[in-house]
Amino acid sequence: MEDLDLKNIIEDIEYLASEKNSRMILNILVGNYPADVAQILGNLSEENEKYVFGLLDADIASDVIVELDDVSREKLVSELQHERISEIVDEMESDDATDLVAELPDEIAEKVLDAIDEEGSEEVKELLQHEEDTAGGIMALEYVSMPEETTVDEAIEEIRAKAEDVPEVYNVYVVDNEGMLVGFLPLKNLIVAQASQKLKDVLIADVISVPTEMDQEEVANIFRRYNLVSIPVVDELGRLVGRITVDDIVEVIEEEASEDMQKMAGIADEEEIRETSVFKISFGRLPWLLVGFVGQLIAALVLFQFEASLKDIFLAIFFIPMMMAMGGNSGIQAATIVVRGIALGELSPDDTFKRLSREIRVSLVNGMVCGLLLFGIIAIFYNPSFGLVLALSMLAVIINASILGASIPLILRRVGVDPAIAAGPLITTFNDIIGLAIYLGLVTASLQYI
Amino acid sequence: MEDLDLKNIIEDIEYLASEKNSRMILNILVGNYPADVAQILGNLSEENEKYVFGLLDADIASDVIVELDDVSREKLVSELQHERISEIVDEMESDDATDLVAELPDEIAEKVLDAIDEEGSEEVKELLQHEEDTAGGIMALEYVSMPEETTVDEAIEEIRAKAEDVPEVYNVYVVDNEGMLVGFLPLKNLIVAQASQKLKDVLIADVISVPTEMDQEEVANIFRRYNLVSIPVVDELGRLVGRITVDDIVEVIEEEASEDMQKMAGIADEEEIRETSVFKISFGRLPWLLVGFVGQLIAALVLFQFEASLKDIFLAIFFIPMMMAMGGNSGIQAATIVVRGIALGELSPDDTFKRLSREIRVSLVNGMVCGLLLFGIIAIFYNPSFGLVLALSMLAVIINASILGASIPLILRRVGVDPAIAAGPLITTFNDIIGLAIYLGLVTASLQYI
Repeated sequence: MEDLDLKNIIEDIEYLASEKNSRMILNILVGNYPADVAQILGNLSEENEKYVFGLLDADIASDVIVELDDVSREKLVSELQHERISEIVDEMESDDATDLVAELPDEIAEKVLDAIDEEGSEEVKELLQHEEDTAGGIMALEYVSMPEETTVDEAIEEIRAKAEDVPEVYNVYVVDNEGMLVGFLPLKNLIVAQASQKLKDVLIADVISVPTEMDQEEVANIFRRYNLVSIPVVDELGRLVGRITVDDIVEVIEEEASEDMQKMAGIADEEEIRETSVFKISFGRLPWLLVGFVGQLIAALVLFQFEASLKDIFLAIFFIPMMMAMGGNSGIQAATIVVRGIALGELSPDDTFKRLSREIRVSLVNGMVCGLLLFGIIAIFYNPSFGLVLALSMLAVIINASILGASIPLILRRVGVDPAIAAGPLITTFNDIIGLAIYLGLVTASLQYI
Repeated sequence: MEDLDLKNIIEDIEYLASEKNSRMILNILVGNYPADVAQILGNLSEENEKYVFGLLDADIASDVIVELDDVSREKLVSELQHERISEIVDEMESDDATDLVAELPDEIAEKVLDAIDEEGSEEVKELLQHEEDTAGGIMALEYVSMPEETTVDEAIEEIRAKAEDVPEVYNVYVVDNEGMLVGFLPLKNLIVAQASQKLKDVLIADVISVPTEMDQEEVANIFRRYNLVSIPVVDELGRLVGRITVDDIVEVIEEEASEDMQKMAGIADEEEIRETSVFKISFGRLPWLLVGFVGQLIAALVLFQFEASLKDIFLAIFFIPMMMAMGGNSGIQAATIVVRGIALGELSPDDTFKRLSREIRVSLVNGMVCGLLLFGIIAIFYNPSFGLVLALSMLAVIINASILGASIPLILRRVGVDPAIAAGPLITTFNDIIGLAIYLGLVTASLQYI
């Protein structure tokens, strides 16, 4: 929806809501996509948002609520009666219903699970067992599976019968008597096949599936690698238990990228872009600021150690920011490439040595370019020997920063910590402390020659 | 494929390749997914990679080459004869063929376009007209479209006939006599509909399409917003001209996230994770390092201006790193949230004021927490008045950095520059210079009280 249209619609609805003109509001909203209705709602005043949402039929409300951003949804749901929540949950697909119930306070969740239809309630309880960011946590129970003896004709009949329950059908999954996944059939193949053929004779046996406990980021990498639109999820015995569709994977990819970027920026607790609570935001950002704080107290102590040299060559002080910044920037460049490579599954542990040697060579080139420049400037405007000390420091600081930047994420992965947290304040702080020590150490060592 | 399996297969193939045992190699590779074969190839020695790739039939080679990373593909293709390239391109879908031809040197591209079948050649030439990162640049010409008068029965027949040419069919697009897109029909709906119904009576008229010139990032946001698996592309008159599938969009999303992360890390030219040329890598990273270099020369001049104050209160020097780092970290936190919000389309220009006011409030909280801590430490170990100066500086530096961090990306968007470049060295360098001026200005102003 264009920004201008949106603005007009929002204005109209704000006015109509103040007039409590529910008929006109529904006239405007009907026929819009749930995502568009959600965006409109998100831009209304809180009071009007609640009023307008209350006008929606449960089936529309259930589609819209899924599309709201997390902050708006949480706020909206917290103000709904549990009867209304139950109505809405009843209309949802199993994965969305589970996500919504998981966000509810325990006592309301229980009431909702009691109120919705029994099958739905069982499904949600089953899905709640899985960790939120695993294949089991994002899978849905709406899929089409059939025994291998089914004929193509029967399969098509079955899809007709299930058309209402399973909104998106891309593949038919084929299972044996024990419920083990034995193959799949894209809808196109079903159409192309002959009516009397049995599924076991037309299925594609080489089916890619994932276990319930696989991390969602890994699932996303599998979708990407094999160009999938949906993937079956199996339990530890290989029985088909759910399905993940690519639209959820697209969300996962955006989420994981956002998460990595935030971690790299030193935001500890994931911050919603539309988060409005200043304290929640502060709370997420302060931990790494405080790590930096402590690190810089150490940096202050490092400088204190070199007080005598600094007093001797006062000029050295002026280049403290430069050494810090050039180290910081080089370290983050190296770290970002490594962190991203790990996230996309493009850097295997075997690549460690190659990667480090590449980064060292790059830092040699960059360090020499920057060092020579600095040498030239200082040699012209001050004196060559101090220029040489600065140039060598620059080279050493950049090499050190690149090694730290590339190796810390690789080490973190090896010990099972998310490498993304490394590429931010952690590396920068380390770099500052070590970089300053290198720089001032070199200055001190060459005091008599400057 | 598991890392261990992969390692074993690679060892086997390296050995077999040295023995030129082509039969055994093909036995191992046949039945693997193209992405897996590509990964195996990418891990072989250069010579063996070339040899093994040469063994593959053109249709398999065409699937494998698409899955290679850009660096490996470019290297491999540069060593192929144009006859072999033509064979491979002939087997490709139009969008992949276009990407490959676009990467070739002009003279070879011409030879290839002459050698492949005429229809394919026309398609590639048509697709080459579009900018690489627009809807037109990523769309393919393989899709199923039918006139609105077609019956369901005829449509199914047509799909059977086209089954070979169009590997992935999720939707049938319906066009009128002028070729204008009038609706679509998911395959499931086609199965559910009655054989004698006309498409115009069962189609979904509310079809989301994109124009050829739309930026691919925007297309990706539309996929995400409306949970699509494919989208029709139309020309300026509304005529159907192509189709984009979600697997390509998944690539776009990963690419755009990688690009943003790299820009935020100050990497000017996109760096492939598997890039091996040290000079290419340096060349991409140096520009922002040099911007930082110049910025830090200015920072040195700022310090030089305050030489007298620094000599008066030598202790102030020790906190230069802290002021720089806390400003830098706060600025990047603010910038990252804004850059990400813009990329995902979740921050509209109307949100500018709200966003800034939120960032200022957050920086007040964080600045006060850090400032108080610093005040406490300095008051205890040195003296309260210097502690107060440091605390106020810290607060001012953090507020300044947050405002810069949030506003620079918003300003860049307004003037049409990619905001992601802001969230890296640019903001950090500005922050360093302004932060140092604020800090030393405050120190100088309060010299007599310390």
